[in-house]
Amino acid sequence: MQRIESHASHGGVQEVWQHESVALNCTMRFGIYLPPQARARACPVLYWLSGLTCTEQNFITKAGAQQFAADYGLIVVAPDTSPRGDAVADADGYDLGKGAGFYVDATQAPWAAHYRMHAYVASELPALIEANFPATGARSISGHSMGGHGALVLALRHPGRYRSVSAFSPIVAPSRVPWGEKAFAAYLGDDREAWRSWDACALIVNAAERLPLLVDQGEADEFLATQLRPELLEQACREAAHPLILRRRPDYDHSYYFVASFLGDHFAHHAQALGLRPA
Amino acid sequence: MQRIESHASHGGVQEVWQHESVALNCTMRFGIYLPPQARARACPVLYWLSGLTCTEQNFITKAGAQQFAADYGLIVVAPDTSPRGDAVADADGYDLGKGAGFYVDATQAPWAAHYRMHAYVASELPALIEANFPATGARSISGHSMGGHGALVLALRHPGRYRSVSAFSPIVAPSRVPWGEKAFAAYLGDDREAWRSWDACALIVNAAERLPLLVDQGEADEFLATQLRPELLEQACREAAHPLILRRRPDYDHSYYFVASFLGDHFAHHAQALGLRPA
Repeated sequence: MQRIESHASHGGVQEVWQHESVALNCTMRFGIYLPPQARARACPVLYWLSGLTCTEQNFITKAGAQQFAADYGLIVVAPDTSPRGDAVADADGYDLGKGAGFYVDATQAPWAAHYRMHAYVASELPALIEANFPATGARSISGHSMGGHGALVLALRHPGRYRSVSAFSPIVAPSRVPWGEKAFAAYLGDDREAWRSWDACALIVNAAERLPLLVDQGEADEFLATQLRPELLEQACREAAHPLILRRRPDYDHSYYFVASFLGDHFAHHAQALGLRPA
Repeated sequence: MQRIESHASHGGVQEVWQHESVALNCTMRFGIYLPPQARARACPVLYWLSGLTCTEQNFITKAGAQQFAADYGLIVVAPDTSPRGDAVADADGYDLGKGAGFYVDATQAPWAAHYRMHAYVASELPALIEANFPATGARSISGHSMGGHGALVLALRHPGRYRSVSAFSPIVAPSRVPWGEKAFAAYLGDDREAWRSWDACALIVNAAERLPLLVDQGEADEFLATQLRPELLEQACREAAHPLILRRRPDYDHSYYFVASFLGDHFAHHAQALGLRPA
């Protein structure tokens, strides 16, 4: 593991690390914010999953998360969105291949050799963080767009692993929208039955845990009706009696301006679940 | 004038506009944040000047300024850092030409045809803003690095034009450091006497107004000893009995992580001078 960036930020430090990932079979980078509290004691960890085209940089430079993390004493880990490197398969377009890992474990060639973002985020990365940083085993998860899908799916697939989950503008039903259909057909193959275990709306039916889902969605989001379709999540939660807090925000679009506007609310949600109070 | 971006943000709206600048003789872009208060009444304006290599995008995407602007009811205008376009002279290197206007009015060929960032920021841009947006005539100014130099020089050259001034990591004595010497020799010529009216430390000697200077400077800033030299500002202010609040921040570097960490303090400073209270 090699530290490649380190910046004092809000009393703590924003770092970027590079390491060899076993799950992804390539060199990966992640951002980690260590709040001032982490100098004295272990802190819980919020995992943030970014959206299509993002690297580990977008969230750490644009969201303003460090101020909240410093206030609550929360470590924030922001991985990249796909495997990287010359040996890794890619595709034309921003919505498949590099920058578009969709937080699944691919089963199809040529993707299966590297595209195992689920295994990476669910298991390898937390083990790495908890072994090398002052992190407790308490975890929460959040994300944006494709990363919102990732956060919901990881929480639903792994009862007990996360204390709380939230999402901004998530792809809630990837099996039923163009982004998800394209990615799942490539990564998982044509059998749509196999897609269900990577689809938040499908997973909710059999969720073993009633972890409340906090979701913010901008109503001026350019992808709202075609790719995001929050009404499908509302319907699935209603039918399964799964707790959902869905906030539709008039005028907000799909950008980090939206994320930054309501990120403090999401940190408050996670902090409460993790038993943290503001400094 | 053409609006090319518009994003809801913290209850207000972050926009980017494009217009033909008379002073710069080219097409220019600026960011403007309109807080929610601006829907009901005119608001004062904080001008933010960015540093070397920046466009109008860096500050609006990375600093987290919108939350404070929304809280106080302050419009924030962030211009680009130089004239732009194929007709505009440029140079090799990041510290001269495009992205490096240094907020002066160039007198030397080939720069004089477009490089008049001082005239643009001091006069043309405020006139444009106050004619086209719900802005009062009350103004404050701040900036980072080259833009910190710009903010200090503009405030010192124009008594009464700004209610308050602040800077992050400013180039306080451009006449005496490599960045400034290179830019001033090109834009202003070899006569160093002409440089004095663009150098904050030189201007302080004859400042007509005792506007306090608020400056934050990271002590782990990679440019501290070679380009920034805050001790020269301390000395000039001491000799001229000019009020200076200089805060040296251990561990902080030259990045926007530093700006974001203390921007709330600077907004509080400007808000107080402008008679604004948090919502």
